[in-house]
Amino acid sequence: MTSWQKYIDGNQEQYVEELKQFLRIPSISSLPEHKPDVVNAAGWTAKRLESAGIENVKIHAAGPVPVVCGDWLHAEGKPTVLIYGHFDVQPVDPVDLWTTPPFEPDIRDNRIYARGAGDDKGNLLAPVIAAEAMLNRRQELPLNVKFIFEAEEEVGSPNLPGFIETHKDQLACDLVLCADGGQWAEDQGAILLGLRGLCAIQVDVKGADADSHSGTYGGTLMNPASALARLVSSFHDAEGRVQVAGFYDAVRSLSDVERRQIGDVPFDEDEYKAALGLSDLFGEKGFSTYERAWVRPTLEINGIYGGFQGEGVKTVIPSTAHAKISCRLVPDQDPDDVARQVLAHIEAHKPPGVTVDARQAESGAYPYLIPHDHPGNQAARKVLKAVYGKEPYYTRTGGSIPFCSLMEQKLDAYTVILSFALDDENAHAPDEFFRLESFAKGQKAYGMMFEELARDTK
Amino acid sequence: MTSWQKYIDGNQEQYVEELKQFLRIPSISSLPEHKPDVVNAAGWTAKRLESAGIENVKIHAAGPVPVVCGDWLHAEGKPTVLIYGHFDVQPVDPVDLWTTPPFEPDIRDNRIYARGAGDDKGNLLAPVIAAEAMLNRRQELPLNVKFIFEAEEEVGSPNLPGFIETHKDQLACDLVLCADGGQWAEDQGAILLGLRGLCAIQVDVKGADADSHSGTYGGTLMNPASALARLVSSFHDAEGRVQVAGFYDAVRSLSDVERRQIGDVPFDEDEYKAALGLSDLFGEKGFSTYERAWVRPTLEINGIYGGFQGEGVKTVIPSTAHAKISCRLVPDQDPDDVARQVLAHIEAHKPPGVTVDARQAESGAYPYLIPHDHPGNQAARKVLKAVYGKEPYYTRTGGSIPFCSLMEQKLDAYTVILSFALDDENAHAPDEFFRLESFAKGQKAYGMMFEELARDTK
Repeated sequence: MTSWQKYIDGNQEQYVEELKQFLRIPSISSLPEHKPDVVNAAGWTAKRLESAGIENVKIHAAGPVPVVCGDWLHAEGKPTVLIYGHFDVQPVDPVDLWTTPPFEPDIRDNRIYARGAGDDKGNLLAPVIAAEAMLNRRQELPLNVKFIFEAEEEVGSPNLPGFIETHKDQLACDLVLCADGGQWAEDQGAILLGLRGLCAIQVDVKGADADSHSGTYGGTLMNPASALARLVSSFHDAEGRVQVAGFYDAVRSLSDVERRQIGDVPFDEDEYKAALGLSDLFGEKGFSTYERAWVRPTLEINGIYGGFQGEGVKTVIPSTAHAKISCRLVPDQDPDDVARQVLAHIEAHKPPGVTVDARQAESGAYPYLIPHDHPGNQAARKVLKAVYGKEPYYTRTGGSIPFCSLMEQKLDAYTVILSFALDDENAHAPDEFFRLESFAKGQKAYGMMFEELARDTK
Repeated sequence: MTSWQKYIDGNQEQYVEELKQFLRIPSISSLPEHKPDVVNAAGWTAKRLESAGIENVKIHAAGPVPVVCGDWLHAEGKPTVLIYGHFDVQPVDPVDLWTTPPFEPDIRDNRIYARGAGDDKGNLLAPVIAAEAMLNRRQELPLNVKFIFEAEEEVGSPNLPGFIETHKDQLACDLVLCADGGQWAEDQGAILLGLRGLCAIQVDVKGADADSHSGTYGGTLMNPASALARLVSSFHDAEGRVQVAGFYDAVRSLSDVERRQIGDVPFDEDEYKAALGLSDLFGEKGFSTYERAWVRPTLEINGIYGGFQGEGVKTVIPSTAHAKISCRLVPDQDPDDVARQVLAHIEAHKPPGVTVDARQAESGAYPYLIPHDHPGNQAARKVLKAVYGKEPYYTRTGGSIPFCSLMEQKLDAYTVILSFALDDENAHAPDEFFRLESFAKGQKAYGMMFEELARDTK
């Protein structure tokens, strides 16, 4: 074991104490009342970077929210990596389903339970600790490292595009390492190659000026809830294929290698259904479940509402009805293009007798895909093989991390996703936890990754 | 002018004061906190019947609510009429849109403004005053009269069927006069021949056990909101015709006379649309607007809901989605039969990948139709012609008054709807009012109707 690895092992208790401190800050980005906590978390993160030996640590303002940056840039002739993570967390509702309070970290069975344990505070600390260990033992890092930790990942990073645009020099790098994401299993790693993108649309259907009496007026006017249902049902065919014209045009077809890589990832349909409480899955014909979740675009109704929702019967014709729609996108779909296609579909399928107002929501993200054999992934593969003793799977995820596609678009830098949370750790749900073994594994993996990447001269 | 008519004219100021008293009682049947007010209104009604000279006045219990009955049965050999009205009122929200408080009656422009002014307290008092005037001047009525005033018309009369069933002897009559309903215009009367019936159904669609992440799971499972939209859109064809098998089977076709009567009722499409704030009407081809509203059955979505309804974007796949459905029915549709047809349609059109639970709601009513030339309507026609100086229109309404069909089914008695509220008087809305001229007109019309009906020997 190298001396920096011994340093990490020797300080593990202290790191867990630090993680506990970090987790006590309820930095929920979606709730305005927690804004001061998000600011505190930024301050905590900046101090931790400084104590690790990182230089030029600064809390920037990205619009109304903080972004923490820092760097160590003394490895002349070596590549530069930019490390990304986020110190904001999800809300905690329903809070009564937590075994212990979400912001009072508790260790049970060598797992630390708290909101943000794995998503993303534990993972964010891993590369900081790796850098600290190397700087402490060797007074230098094997390559140049920059850090960017943001405060809004859980709300779609609305201020990040502007921040990247105005800090291009500062963020320029050869490769991004994303300390947010996850691994496949306790005993097997995975290289995450792709993320889906996102665009969202709000649809408002309006009929009469007020809810009207279904006895007096029923039969004489278009019911906005019926009109909305007709519109919503036009989005898919009976087998779940999206019917929006042009929707699939930009979708890159799956190569044989990609298809095989996805097929290699173990999938147990019964387990998958049981976890969701479903008796049947549903989706596009000709694609496996993981293919549908990872490499196929979707159009989903996130919410539908209009008229009476109370107990019992109220015989009104709703004045309005609404749908919230979002699309998950895959390469090479463009969120604005797809939103335009959906809006055109709505315009073309507008039912008679009502007015339909539809508009694109601000939140959006480009899909992200990195070649499986990219040099960064080759390095990650060696590290994961060393950490787990097995070849990693090549996976994707249906979710989105806006930073990855933003860095590709704006700074031409690919992102290797290197993170150690597991699927069963209740991210976004009650009793979120992070395995302390994964926490330590991540710290060493980042050190090993620094060494692997340093073998490339720039 | 007969002496009882003079008596009515001479006491009009006092009757308006009494109506004010009655209107000060906030007898809202849908709000549990107003239960004591509903009981007070029953007491007030019973006392008013007694002071008019009506005998055997009693407050019965129909389940948990009061029903006020009374009679005067000394006209041997003459027909017996049963007079129906209701002393409960609608809620007052949005209360800030009222010019004066809803339970502080205010007279402006010879109109009395208050919740329940025309629906139905003013109309309910008219036959009571007519009976009082005749009993005061002549010490007798020209025919036998029974009264039933209920407390739950505004919530669909759920306890009335049971009450009628157990009080058949007491309610037996040759004809019902319904003091709830309305006239066509200030200068022209109308005979209301038909009411639509009602059945209601709740549909609950369930997918995964909880809202799921649209990134992680989108594309692999059926979205319950999409499934519900597909189901809801299957209820109608593109032109608004109900697609439920058998739905129109029991619908009686319109005779030439009926069609002509409806065609004779003035209709201004621009006014109708402007009142609703619509640029286009919509509905079944081959029927006029009034035909669609009055003599054609409907299936309406009263509410639709599932998933995220807040501001902004939340990328969930809803766990559940729901629709509240009600059908307005026309002769000879049976509410239970139609509910069964709708449930069968739902079963047959259940989308895959979700569970669908649908059930009939308790509220229901049979449609009602009286022949336009029924002797009761012939009498009403003479009275209305005398009151307005013109032939009345023959109209229908798309709404429901459960009492009318209940009396036909359970006691084989037709109902003549004789009531003097007008369409523009904001029933169920802020600033409800009743023209004081209509109030007086109704009192005399009831007296004249008693005399007309008395010409028939039983």
